[in-house]
Amino acid sequence: MGSTNDKSEYFIGVDLGGTKIYAGVFDPGLALVGTTKLSTKSDRGHAAVIERLARCVRDAIDECDLSSKNIRAVGVGAPGTVDGETGRVVFAPNLGWQNVPLQKELQKQLEMPVFVGNDCTLGMLGVYAQELKAKPSHVIGIFIGTGIGGGLILNGEPYTGAGHAAGEVGHMVINMGGPKCACGNQGCLEAVASRTAIFRRVAAAVKDGQKTILTDMLGDELKDLRSGDLRKAIRRGDKLVERVVSDAADCIGIAVGNLINIFSPEIVVLGGGVIEALDDEMLPTISKIARQHVLPGTEKSIEIISSKLGDHAGIVGAAVFARQSVKTL
Amino acid sequence: MGSTNDKSEYFIGVDLGGTKIYAGVFDPGLALVGTTKLSTKSDRGHAAVIERLARCVRDAIDECDLSSKNIRAVGVGAPGTVDGETGRVVFAPNLGWQNVPLQKELQKQLEMPVFVGNDCTLGMLGVYAQELKAKPSHVIGIFIGTGIGGGLILNGEPYTGAGHAAGEVGHMVINMGGPKCACGNQGCLEAVASRTAIFRRVAAAVKDGQKTILTDMLGDELKDLRSGDLRKAIRRGDKLVERVVSDAADCIGIAVGNLINIFSPEIVVLGGGVIEALDDEMLPTISKIARQHVLPGTEKSIEIISSKLGDHAGIVGAAVFARQSVKTL
Repeated sequence: MGSTNDKSEYFIGVDLGGTKIYAGVFDPGLALVGTTKLSTKSDRGHAAVIERLARCVRDAIDECDLSSKNIRAVGVGAPGTVDGETGRVVFAPNLGWQNVPLQKELQKQLEMPVFVGNDCTLGMLGVYAQELKAKPSHVIGIFIGTGIGGGLILNGEPYTGAGHAAGEVGHMVINMGGPKCACGNQGCLEAVASRTAIFRRVAAAVKDGQKTILTDMLGDELKDLRSGDLRKAIRRGDKLVERVVSDAADCIGIAVGNLINIFSPEIVVLGGGVIEALDDEMLPTISKIARQHVLPGTEKSIEIISSKLGDHAGIVGAAVFARQSVKTL
Repeated sequence: MGSTNDKSEYFIGVDLGGTKIYAGVFDPGLALVGTTKLSTKSDRGHAAVIERLARCVRDAIDECDLSSKNIRAVGVGAPGTVDGETGRVVFAPNLGWQNVPLQKELQKQLEMPVFVGNDCTLGMLGVYAQELKAKPSHVIGIFIGTGIGGGLILNGEPYTGAGHAAGEVGHMVINMGGPKCACGNQGCLEAVASRTAIFRRVAAAVKDGQKTILTDMLGDELKDLRSGDLRKAIRRGDKLVERVVSDAADCIGIAVGNLINIFSPEIVVLGGGVIEALDDEMLPTISKIARQHVLPGTEKSIEIISSKLGDHAGIVGAAVFARQSVKTL
């Protein structure tokens, strides 16, 4: 190994999701060197998941021909409320976690500095660091995947609020009395515009006898349906899928309009798997509807863009967070 | 006059509304000494309104047996987007104003330092200064009157965003496809829960032949209906008014839940004329519904309260703003 590899200047960013753990190794300039993935197995309990996190990090280091002494710090984005100062996961329904001292436990196993934040807050930080060169003061990030989450940059800094729970834009009710949400309420953005919501509407339409080429592609059960299949169907002229995706974009547009009226940001960034797959299909509608809902006088100066980082936003942001945090130790 | 009155240590706070100008004189400790009111007459154009603002301020000074040399600074809350640094009113639809250099013009007429901010932001500042003794870091204020506006304190400071237009919580869509709003969209909070929205629903029900004691009190045309009449009707057992007010409280509760999920604040404060009149009738419902909509884990630590400042919040906040601004000159 060369002399640089004796220095502990690499960073690791980990995205801890409900179904998979995704770890990336970043060089001192935060360029991505390599990644590893491991299933989460949250049903085995938090101790097992933390062991898997540690294994995933060690595998990533090994994959990049590095050793643990090359790693300056590890950042982890967790899907829930995180007390950033103690690194404790206060509440993460997708993992079934309450009050898990993730930072402390993972640090013990890895023997390197670990910092923990909310996954969407760190995703926003990743987009901010790598894609928003103008360094705007106020940015809203909305990540649309299985669920919908948000990350906020206010006054140039990540904002998480008093209870470390800010940015839950997926649970903004926009359609009172509308479809039931996983959170127990009705008409949340997540219940009308997440991948889950879109798939549910397509499946209901198929059951209802409506035609879509998705059944030719995947069978009547729509087995293994993915966001990319929706894009393919729309590009082949599938009217049903086009309408469902367009309705979801309308809802996201209304939510973006709400957030602009509330925050008056410079930029709104859309990310996550659904946007990654359906950027061209959804962004023009989202932008149009949002601008219709913004109060006059401010809509012209607002940028509404999509992130090109896709699934990488989380690991990039976690690495950025690790680097920032270790500097202020 | 005593010797203290030779010192220029008094502050004036002005609430510039669409129908009236309300000015208060505050002593150096920001206790209210006296007030004056004047109609706005916005149809006469902005130059005339600024002259009336100046007259209202001079009348208030005279009413308190003071002279202009006793006044350290004047703060004005304007109903719209205000560039706080230049004191320019960028956009105020209720006044018909665009790009009016209010600070500069009023300063010229009064020959004393003038500072201009958004009325709801200053109302929030007034509540923060006088009612929130614990000085929480993150507070959301929602003011419910003819319209619905909001003021934000984030990280202990008023937050107005990049376009000075933040806090427009009245134009958060919570009921897609719902009642038409003055802003041109549908289902905004303002369109379902402002005084205007409540009155419209009562009037429609009366037209529809439904019974309410409001018609005994005010005639079939509901002439001069005020928020206080709704309270009287509910206390006399009027089922129609009770239902309409309860529905509005449900909507406000959903909006408060949305804002808690977005901001994770310590406190949400409700103010404005509707809340001043219907506090006992609305606050329990608002609080219950909001807590149902907040993601689990954070709802316990959140306070949802009403401001006791009522109509005074605006002038208090404008005076607080004047004192803060003159100190940093």
